[in-house]
Amino acid sequence: MQVIKTSIEGLIELRPQTFKDSRGSFLETYNQPVFNALGLPAQFVQDNQSFSTKGVLRGLHFQKEPFAQGKLVRVITGKVMDIAVDLREDSPTFGKYEAFILDSEISNMAYIPEGFAHGFVALEDSIFSYKCTNVYNKACESGIIWNDPDLNIDWGISNPIVSDKDQQLASFRDLYPQSVT
Amino acid sequence: MQVIKTSIEGLIELRPQTFKDSRGSFLETYNQPVFNALGLPAQFVQDNQSFSTKGVLRGLHFQKEPFAQGKLVRVITGKVMDIAVDLREDSPTFGKYEAFILDSEISNMAYIPEGFAHGFVALEDSIFSYKCTNVYNKACESGIIWNDPDLNIDWGISNPIVSDKDQQLASFRDLYPQSVT
Ligand SMILES: Cc1cn([C@H]2C[C@H](O)[C@@H](COP(=O)(O)OP(=O)(O)O[C@H]3O[C@H](CO)[C@@H](O)[C@H](O)[C@H]3O)O2)c(=O)[nH]c1=O
Ligand SMILES: Cc1cn([C@H]2C[C@H](O)[C@@H](COP(=O)(O)OP(=O)(O)O[C@H]3O[C@H](CO)[C@@H](O)[C@H](O)[C@H]3O)O2)c(=O)[nH]c1=O
Repeated sequence: MQVIKTSIEGLIELRPQTFKDSRGSFLETYNQPVFNALGLPAQFVQDNQSFSTKGVLRGLHFQKEPFAQGKLVRVITGKVMDIAVDLREDSPTFGKYEAFILDSEISNMAYIPEGFAHGFVALEDSIFSYKCTNVYNKACESGIIWNDPDLNIDWGISNPIVSDKDQQLASFRDLYPQSVT
Repeated sequence: MQVIKTSIEGLIELRPQTFKDSRGSFLETYNQPVFNALGLPAQFVQDNQSFSTKGVLRGLHFQKEPFAQGKLVRVITGKVMDIAVDLREDSPTFGKYEAFILDSEISNMAYIPEGFAHGFVALEDSIFSYKCTNVYNKACESGIIWNDPDLNIDWGISNPIVSDKDQQLASFRDLYPQSVT
């Protein structure tokens, strides 16, 4: 497993090894002792899977305390641009984001720690899968509008398909008034 | 989550709920508190994914103690016939098997406890995924030949694509000489 650091502390990209033969392919998508050895969170309690048609944007989402979630994200078919925004108020990169291309051809993944907002846009019809360090809790759901002017994320798409719920999300400025000057 | 018992104690089929909307779909493929509440093993330490072209047969596999694995199996794309053989020597259904059609259209899964041999044949090009209660251990790998005359499994296919390794697997009779009369 290849581990690639990003410019944001704790946010990393992972590239597991794929074994190919005449039948097809095989890969380990998660291995607790390997994650432990890498110093990564190794206790995931929920796995989710979504299908999105090309042009769908889901996000930016996070759950509030005490249900904050670390997420191990990847795609199984297709390709997405994945975005993680650092919302840890004591972090030197607070308010900064990182973009990953998650591609089923290379089976790369990203580990997004607790304290981040997360979203993605489907560059192709894509099956997206993620593991969570904490369970779903409707009452703790929160988020930031995808096209927030302060975060200024380059999604590479101007008219994504966004759920009604995601169109109602707050602005970064509303959530962190003290942080925007 | 719908839980369907089989004729073999401990071997069950699961049907999670899928939410569809204009973006695509969403489902929880694993939820530890839900599994706990159902009395199912809820500690999985490894997730694997394989791709098989139509006609590939993988199996029958198991790991020996102390690395016996319970497996939560499903398909993400395509369709397979999945086979679980009871090898628990104190079980009333020892030597019996159950077949499941795992279909990505309905996202059904099977939970196969420790003490079973497992295999599947791909009815279509299929992405297969499974969670394990114990890690991979090469030295503990074992198995039974897919077309074993005593197990007499109806695979519905006469010339599957089988790995060299799987063609060398032992017979049920060799592994359990005292059980076949
Ligand atoms: C997140 C979640 C949702 N649901 C249900 C509630 C809804 O009926 C349905 C869809 O939920 P939505 O809130 O629209 O999900 P969606 O916008 O796709 O967002 C989720 O899925 C995204 C990936 O698909 C993640 O990036 C988000 O963090 C996550 O919140 O699934 C669950 O049953 N369990 C869950 O964990
Ligand atoms: C099972 C396993 C295998 N491997 C490596 C070893 C090989 O280089 C490669 C393929 O291994 P094989 O032993 O040929 O895997 P395969 O015949 O598909 O069987 C495995 O995968 C099947 C599903 O794909 C399971 O039903 C079997 O229980 C499991 O043993 O993957 C791992 O790195 N980790 C693993 O957990």
